[in-house]
Amino acid sequence: MIANLFFENSTRTKFSFEIAAKRLGGNILNFNTDSSSLAKGESLYDTIKTFESLGVEIGIIRHSDDSYIESMQEIFNFSVVNAGAGKFEHPSQSLLDLYTIRQEIGTLENLTVTICGDIKNSRVAKSNINALEKFGAKVFLCGPDDLLPKEIPSHCEVAKIDEAIVKSDVVMFLRVQHERHTDSEVNIKTYNQNYGLNDKRVELLKDSAIIMHPGPVNRDVEIATHLVEHEKSRIFKQMENGVYTRMAILEWIVS
Amino acid sequence: MIANLFFENSTRTKFSFEIAAKRLGGNILNFNTDSSSLAKGESLYDTIKTFESLGVEIGIIRHSDDSYIESMQEIFNFSVVNAGAGKFEHPSQSLLDLYTIRQEIGTLENLTVTICGDIKNSRVAKSNINALEKFGAKVFLCGPDDLLPKEIPSHCEVAKIDEAIVKSDVVMFLRVQHERHTDSEVNIKTYNQNYGLNDKRVELLKDSAIIMHPGPVNRDVEIATHLVEHEKSRIFKQMENGVYTRMAILEWIVS
Amino acid sequence: MIANLFFENSTRTKFSFEIAAKRLGGNILNFNTDSSSLAKGESLYDTIKTFESLGVEIGIIRHSDDSYIESMQEIFNFSVVNAGAGKFEHPSQSLLDLYTIRQEIGTLENLTVTICGDIKNSRVAKSNINALEKFGAKVFLCGPDDLLPKEIPSHCEVAKIDEAIVKSDVVMFLRVQHERHTDSEVNIKTYNQNYGLNDKRVELLKDSAIIMHPGPVNRDVEIATHLVEHEKSRIFKQMENGVYTRMAILEWIVS
Repeated sequence: MIANLFFENSTRTKFSFEIAAKRLGGNILNFNTDSSSLAKGESLYDTIKTFESLGVEIGIIRHSDDSYIESMQEIFNFSVVNAGAGKFEHPSQSLLDLYTIRQEIGTLENLTVTICGDIKNSRVAKSNINALEKFGAKVFLCGPDDLLPKEIPSHCEVAKIDEAIVKSDVVMFLRVQHERHTDSEVNIKTYNQNYGLNDKRVELLKDSAIIMHPGPVNRDVEIATHLVEHEKSRIFKQMENGVYTRMAILEWIVS
Repeated sequence: MIANLFFENSTRTKFSFEIAAKRLGGNILNFNTDSSSLAKGESLYDTIKTFESLGVEIGIIRHSDDSYIESMQEIFNFSVVNAGAGKFEHPSQSLLDLYTIRQEIGTLENLTVTICGDIKNSRVAKSNINALEKFGAKVFLCGPDDLLPKEIPSHCEVAKIDEAIVKSDVVMFLRVQHERHTDSEVNIKTYNQNYGLNDKRVELLKDSAIIMHPGPVNRDVEIATHLVEHEKSRIFKQMENGVYTRMAILEWIVS
Repeated sequence: MIANLFFENSTRTKFSFEIAAKRLGGNILNFNTDSSSLAKGESLYDTIKTFESLGVEIGIIRHSDDSYIESMQEIFNFSVVNAGAGKFEHPSQSLLDLYTIRQEIGTLENLTVTICGDIKNSRVAKSNINALEKFGAKVFLCGPDDLLPKEIPSHCEVAKIDEAIVKSDVVMFLRVQHERHTDSEVNIKTYNQNYGLNDKRVELLKDSAIIMHPGPVNRDVEIATHLVEHEKSRIFKQMENGVYTRMAILEWIVS
């Protein structure tokens, strides 16, 4: 018995866990924060204690609180899968990204990867930067100055996008999270020209390079709409692999 | 793996597809536009590409856009079931209506049918008018002048309701769609008297005639509340048949 | 085929019925009032007639109308499970409470029980007061004066909480229903001191006494947060037993 406990919006992560659970023969409960007792002010801790008491063994949780995972340490008999924690980490996304890279490039070792966009606020970027380090990757970070992280890990380097992508095996674009930004931080009109994928820039990519994006894409912002399904794009492959990766996560928990 | 993708409200259509899928042993995902990435501005096309990538094979779609079906032509490996497209068509409703008529009257050939209400804006009326033509039906169209279609097909005739129903084998009432109308178009207080079913009018029906309505009924508007379950009413039979019809649709897709 | 028809918020009741149904191999439909035709103004009666027509055999219903159960008398071929009716009754909660008491105390006969809080508006209190009478219980009622019922049943007695709990085998706290109260009725700041569980009061309990609460707890209002998981607390046991009790209810209906 598994529960999807999403306190933030999601399509692909939530449904890929649901499909993964169903493919493995599991029962999944969909917890909708709008119609639940949360409207009565119940905390995440009490919600989880409730599902644990009801006999749920695995909770797949997305929450806006960066540190919710830490507060789960007191809860036993209940496996928590982090499906996105604030601006902190999004490990199942990183696993599916790594799986897609290995499948497409053939290896995870010693790659050159460009990550472009709002890196400071992206849990996807954070998880991928951490994971890629373990495989000896060199990572270029591109984006508006005030959306770059304050501390740059030693395997990373801030770079201009056009200089970074010519050397990269993988180019990952991050979603502009309109809901978290003010207009002064992100100028949508010039974003694609400065930091996005367009006809000019796609020509700079290595022949073997692949284009990635965790979705949903803001078309014509991060990626020009006619390039979303470019032959180098693995955006829909990432979604497909999300199901397999999450099946592996659930199977690993119960085995 | 089937997904219910409803971008407009629904009870009977959505649940009858869900029940149909479950009766056939299928897995169904319920996509709720409120809690999904749609709040982040994702388009119908990208939503469908996402579900296709996740391994969903059939999408049951209701959308307010009249022409969404056309825009689906580019998408392969994914069967789209139209569960209501704007003011354009609602074919599964029409199939269940035809099935109910044949079951109750014994034939679909050469019937006289009255359709009464907001025909101009009704996807149910549009689908039934098209389908009934193929069986040689004569169709009377009744309703407020400005809610009649601009072009009247040759098998149809605009008529006064009291003159139409005395000759009809089937009388279909359409729902007054409050959410689409201005007060000037529909006067709720006089609607039943002018275009609805009431004690006086029910007496005009042929002995063998049946009363239909796609639901939900606005009680005392289209139909006086005590006539909703009149012996000639097949309103709840239509709902029951909706499950069987949608089972047939799903089975036809996968076979 | 079972439908969860919740017209009011719920986590534990709704999901415990869903889990109960799934454990018994049943199919459950989750009706969400927000995304359904209710937004089009459909009544409870018509919603139920719809689900009955769709082939649903059991409806688990929570509704704010005290008397909705009575209005269900006209509907046949459809079993209604009351999952909470306004301020009237909440029988499945009472059954799980009684089951928990018998499990923990060893008997239901001739107990002394304190019920504390907004008894006047609580469907949980009403169901428990009625059920406990059948087992010869003595029930103390505690709470703010204007939240006590107007008529006190003969097996009940209004008492001061500190005098009641020293004699009680079971102490049940009720949730302060912020959504139903005005500030003048409930002063949250002094509520715990006057009517809630705190360090001082927990010492007054008999060694064998148990603490109950239907959930969700307003922490530091009805119960000091560090006492929610006190060794005498059976709050999470109640939730667990809710699944077993609701399995028994569903099994009893279909057998």
